[in-house]
Amino acid sequence: MVKKARIGILGASGYTGAELVRLGLRHPHFELAVLTADRKAGQAMADVFPQFAPFDLPKLVAIEGLDWRSLALDLVFCALPHGTTQLVLKELLDTAPATRVVDLSADFRLDDPAAYETWYGHPHQALSLQSEAVYGLVEIYRKEIKGARLVANPGCYTTTCELPLIPLLKRKAIEPDEIIIDAKSGMTGAGRSAKEAMLFSEVSEGFNAYGIARHRHMAELDQEFSKAAGQDVIATFTPHLVPMNRGILATIYVRLRKDRTARDLRSILAEAYDREPFVHVLPYGDMPQTRHVRGSNMAMIGVAEDRREGAAIIVSVLDNLVKGASGQAIQNANLMLGFPETAGLEQIALFP
Amino acid sequence: MVKKARIGILGASGYTGAELVRLGLRHPHFELAVLTADRKAGQAMADVFPQFAPFDLPKLVAIEGLDWRSLALDLVFCALPHGTTQLVLKELLDTAPATRVVDLSADFRLDDPAAYETWYGHPHQALSLQSEAVYGLVEIYRKEIKGARLVANPGCYTTTCELPLIPLLKRKAIEPDEIIIDAKSGMTGAGRSAKEAMLFSEVSEGFNAYGIARHRHMAELDQEFSKAAGQDVIATFTPHLVPMNRGILATIYVRLRKDRTARDLRSILAEAYDREPFVHVLPYGDMPQTRHVRGSNMAMIGVAEDRREGAAIIVSVLDNLVKGASGQAIQNANLMLGFPETAGLEQIALFP
Amino acid sequence: MVKKARIGILGASGYTGAELVRLGLRHPHFELAVLTADRKAGQAMADVFPQFAPFDLPKLVAIEGLDWRSLALDLVFCALPHGTTQLVLKELLDTAPATRVVDLSADFRLDDPAAYETWYGHPHQALSLQSEAVYGLVEIYRKEIKGARLVANPGCYTTTCELPLIPLLKRKAIEPDEIIIDAKSGMTGAGRSAKEAMLFSEVSEGFNAYGIARHRHMAELDQEFSKAAGQDVIATFTPHLVPMNRGILATIYVRLRKDRTARDLRSILAEAYDREPFVHVLPYGDMPQTRHVRGSNMAMIGVAEDRREGAAIIVSVLDNLVKGASGQAIQNANLMLGFPETAGLEQIALFP
Amino acid sequence: MVKKARIGILGASGYTGAELVRLGLRHPHFELAVLTADRKAGQAMADVFPQFAPFDLPKLVAIEGLDWRSLALDLVFCALPHGTTQLVLKELLDTAPATRVVDLSADFRLDDPAAYETWYGHPHQALSLQSEAVYGLVEIYRKEIKGARLVANPGCYTTTCELPLIPLLKRKAIEPDEIIIDAKSGMTGAGRSAKEAMLFSEVSEGFNAYGIARHRHMAELDQEFSKAAGQDVIATFTPHLVPMNRGILATIYVRLRKDRTARDLRSILAEAYDREPFVHVLPYGDMPQTRHVRGSNMAMIGVAEDRREGAAIIVSVLDNLVKGASGQAIQNANLMLGFPETAGLEQIALFP
Repeated sequence: MVKKARIGILGASGYTGAELVRLGLRHPHFELAVLTADRKAGQAMADVFPQFAPFDLPKLVAIEGLDWRSLALDLVFCALPHGTTQLVLKELLDTAPATRVVDLSADFRLDDPAAYETWYGHPHQALSLQSEAVYGLVEIYRKEIKGARLVANPGCYTTTCELPLIPLLKRKAIEPDEIIIDAKSGMTGAGRSAKEAMLFSEVSEGFNAYGIARHRHMAELDQEFSKAAGQDVIATFTPHLVPMNRGILATIYVRLRKDRTARDLRSILAEAYDREPFVHVLPYGDMPQTRHVRGSNMAMIGVAEDRREGAAIIVSVLDNLVKGASGQAIQNANLMLGFPETAGLEQIALFP
Repeated sequence: MVKKARIGILGASGYTGAELVRLGLRHPHFELAVLTADRKAGQAMADVFPQFAPFDLPKLVAIEGLDWRSLALDLVFCALPHGTTQLVLKELLDTAPATRVVDLSADFRLDDPAAYETWYGHPHQALSLQSEAVYGLVEIYRKEIKGARLVANPGCYTTTCELPLIPLLKRKAIEPDEIIIDAKSGMTGAGRSAKEAMLFSEVSEGFNAYGIARHRHMAELDQEFSKAAGQDVIATFTPHLVPMNRGILATIYVRLRKDRTARDLRSILAEAYDREPFVHVLPYGDMPQTRHVRGSNMAMIGVAEDRREGAAIIVSVLDNLVKGASGQAIQNANLMLGFPETAGLEQIALFP
Repeated sequence: MVKKARIGILGASGYTGAELVRLGLRHPHFELAVLTADRKAGQAMADVFPQFAPFDLPKLVAIEGLDWRSLALDLVFCALPHGTTQLVLKELLDTAPATRVVDLSADFRLDDPAAYETWYGHPHQALSLQSEAVYGLVEIYRKEIKGARLVANPGCYTTTCELPLIPLLKRKAIEPDEIIIDAKSGMTGAGRSAKEAMLFSEVSEGFNAYGIARHRHMAELDQEFSKAAGQDVIATFTPHLVPMNRGILATIYVRLRKDRTARDLRSILAEAYDREPFVHVLPYGDMPQTRHVRGSNMAMIGVAEDRREGAAIIVSVLDNLVKGASGQAIQNANLMLGFPETAGLEQIALFP
Repeated sequence: MVKKARIGILGASGYTGAELVRLGLRHPHFELAVLTADRKAGQAMADVFPQFAPFDLPKLVAIEGLDWRSLALDLVFCALPHGTTQLVLKELLDTAPATRVVDLSADFRLDDPAAYETWYGHPHQALSLQSEAVYGLVEIYRKEIKGARLVANPGCYTTTCELPLIPLLKRKAIEPDEIIIDAKSGMTGAGRSAKEAMLFSEVSEGFNAYGIARHRHMAELDQEFSKAAGQDVIATFTPHLVPMNRGILATIYVRLRKDRTARDLRSILAEAYDREPFVHVLPYGDMPQTRHVRGSNMAMIGVAEDRREGAAIIVSVLDNLVKGASGQAIQNANLMLGFPETAGLEQIALFP
């Protein structure tokens, strides 16, 4: 029997934290050893998420005062706000350099310190970690992730968009300067902090765009699309809020390169993801729905032709809290710790 | 005091029918004289829509057997399925040629019989009415509507898209061959017929695209955009379903013509709709939400610049059952009957 | 033409405030002269509720610094939190004693200062106003309201329960000591303050009871039921939260007095509300739904027999923001100012 | 390694069928050998439930023509409509008497043929099976279930109510003739058949009672409560529909027997379910929410005192498709086949 890995979850009282606990509790090789939540320190996990009441879990503790060395954690999932994250992880990895980290914040996703400063408004405080970090889009960077100590788990919007577009850009099947992404997200993407705009009565029975032309996920998209295309790419990206809890759907409008057809795009994706356990490419012309990946680590992609000649439409979906956050984080952790990649991630989507 | 107009509503048991009754009951110049609903004939309106229980309304009757001449209706709202509509209206107008009609189906929206046949799969059965019909987008065709006997009320998606785009195409501010419309609609747009895919449990907590590259509203968009641009226009149009009852939001990606800016687009629209009671253009950069027009006849439009150079993003919203259907129909009727255009349409949006 | 009354709305940035503006803007005899919102003072109403962007409204101001005398308001709607309310209204009525007030808080609903202190944890600060105030359940206290200067608008839950139960208690048709009220409310009842428990993702796709055996509306129910029964009544009352914006439904379990039947209950209610414009009693055995009163000032009541012998079930619904708050407040104001009772309240429910 | 059991699922295209497939696919000891769906025979499971597209599953087949003997199924889950079920299972067990059956319909839940005939309007067609069937409320009838060939899986409402009430009735802690159950269910309880009243636009943003005093689950409650109490029990039961997909919450009003307190009720339940993996009793005074059991096989129960002296309020929740149907069915199957009772049922609730 495989020895269980000692796992810490920083920021367990948020939605991605709770999702790590939901999946981690049933992971065959995880022992949830430490759960932190600064403002709720001292409380039981069941006090902040009553679904855990029937289960044994460590009490929530504050990060300050933890002795990373003696805790001897094999791996830490960090689900803290950006900014804070880089300070906490710097100290953690200074003290316990053998601990591995999957970070769910945006702090280590951007390679370029200047890009970080532009989008986040302050210089990065942990530059050597930033250069060490590996971008954790498993299907693209699996090899690098296996040997990594610090993995930057991709954003939920970006995972949704990069899974279909990176293979197409690499294969030069689409024009890199005419990509329009119209993205729609469920409300858990906005997190658990109490804001008027996120109240049920403000959100229910309505729909809206937000953050037009200034959402921070754009920096991450620019970076990965540019790498894949071998040239600078600036994609249009408009996020919208859907009155539902979970799910992201991106409708992506692309222009085909000469001699390429929409069917070619589908073939490239089907080939790229043929053996992937968590990416499913639909038959040509079929389009995926967020409800069919709810609660699972699955991403689904569909391709159809556009009415405009030489153009195609791609629809990509995933559950923002699973494949878009905590599920992908566990997938990364499995690779880093040498466990089967699908361990703990086999739940099938909950529909209806 | 103005004499009340005798009004008929054909298809009162559907959602647009109910909305005509909701607004019509409080219209200062309407007398709801006839309500039809073939499958529910003999029932009270309160049996099919209990919100009307406290009010006096005529019983639902079948169309067959009505004597249009002796009914002497001033105006009929026709909310029947397409196909059926053209047969019913032909007989109605043959028998009672002085009655005016606002038709909410798609039967009389397309000028070109060939286009109708292509999109609907059969030749039009009332060609002379088709050529007589005026397209009822009030803000664009107000003058023609005033004298019309038969008005084809525009579709809900098309109204949402045409209000912002027609003025921009007319003023040659945007490229007509690079229009991408990503549209999202509440579920009432799918009507009241019992289909598995429209069940609560199928729809709630999910999001999806549908009818990619083949939605029939495209024919109507092509027609009106081509007229406005003075050249053939084929726009990309992708409809999606939102788990909410009412509201359409269209996110529209356009390329600016040389020397035009996104701010110019906003100015053109602000000027075009400056005196319109039912179209509100937001300050530059602000974006409208469907919830803020719910239940009202108001459309709201916002304009922002895109990240891509030379491009802009327009967001347009309305309530699909009001400005997208029954409200606009009453606005048309008011013009045709010489009533104040806003009569019966002054309700303010219901939010939250 | 009737002169317009100058109206003030205190607390216009909350949901009941917005609802007063929605209805007040279209009221034929209201001029909305003052809108207050302390934390949003200086902003336009459209900044906090964008649905008002197309309309002319006074800017939001702070209460402090208002000169009630020179404002010369005919009537003020007060939608402030309890506790604050009594202080503000004391000053207002001291300064401008001719102004009439409809208060939507709980501050003036309880006759008994001791009961107030028990439920609210502090002595009442405006005792003489408390004794002056008239309880504004229009259908029961219409006569008293007409001459009142200060009306305490009933709570939303209490209106839902009192409309069916007061006539039955008065007529001694049911046992006063065996009333069980299982109440369910939409989320707007919780107001607009940003609390974690009210976030969309916390509320959507779930259902729960809250405040069992300690909800403050019980004090108000006790008072009115005891008055009607002529003896002390303590009803069981369990509120629940429904993932919807608007609507309250109370399922009420009662035991019949000897020789009474469930049909008798229905008859008593039908007779009591026969000429009431805003209370509709359904045919025996039919049960109302919240969706059929949404956005309207209508209450609907149904009665059926229970399986248990000698027992009956009553279901009562209304829109908590309209008949349960702002609509009833305007109904009260109409009486106090001598306008037709239904003025400004004639909108029909918005369904679907 | 345990040999896998060959499993059949009859009625796989409904919601409980899909839930059996979701859980069964990941069950360590199940092989899903046969899936039937008469109207969808010939289709892939992914055509009717796209969430299964990434997985290998047998094609849907019609029941007619299946050779039960040669299929040699170890166990069949029957999720067919009542009435049909008894005919199908009679033939199945006649042909393949060694196959075990867990039936999710109501056909074998009532012991008394007369009660069946009264509630279902026709005589039972498989009387000997009816007398053979064991009622599958695991926590109460575990011993009987282990040896059973045919288990009648309890209804979703009834499981929610029986779990808290049977131990209390057995221990004579509550009065058996004053039980009032106010129950609320998500929409999946209504199944997948296309009915107007179940459309998203009819259901969303509203709440209502239905089937007052005539819901068929009452017969099942009567039977089990009477058995537990040792006397005839007729409970009041009012079901309501909540605009959510999953979850049932029952608010239960009981009168305490002499010398009993609400705290006693809690103690009796805590003791009864102390070692149960799927029933969790909350601390006294805390109340459970449906969202915290969503997608899991867990039931949660809370107890509080009522304002009325000598009375208590119990709130019980579960996921109607899991512990209320397919999860409990698998729990039964595990017992019947000698697998660990929790096998395949360990998923933790999905919240948010």
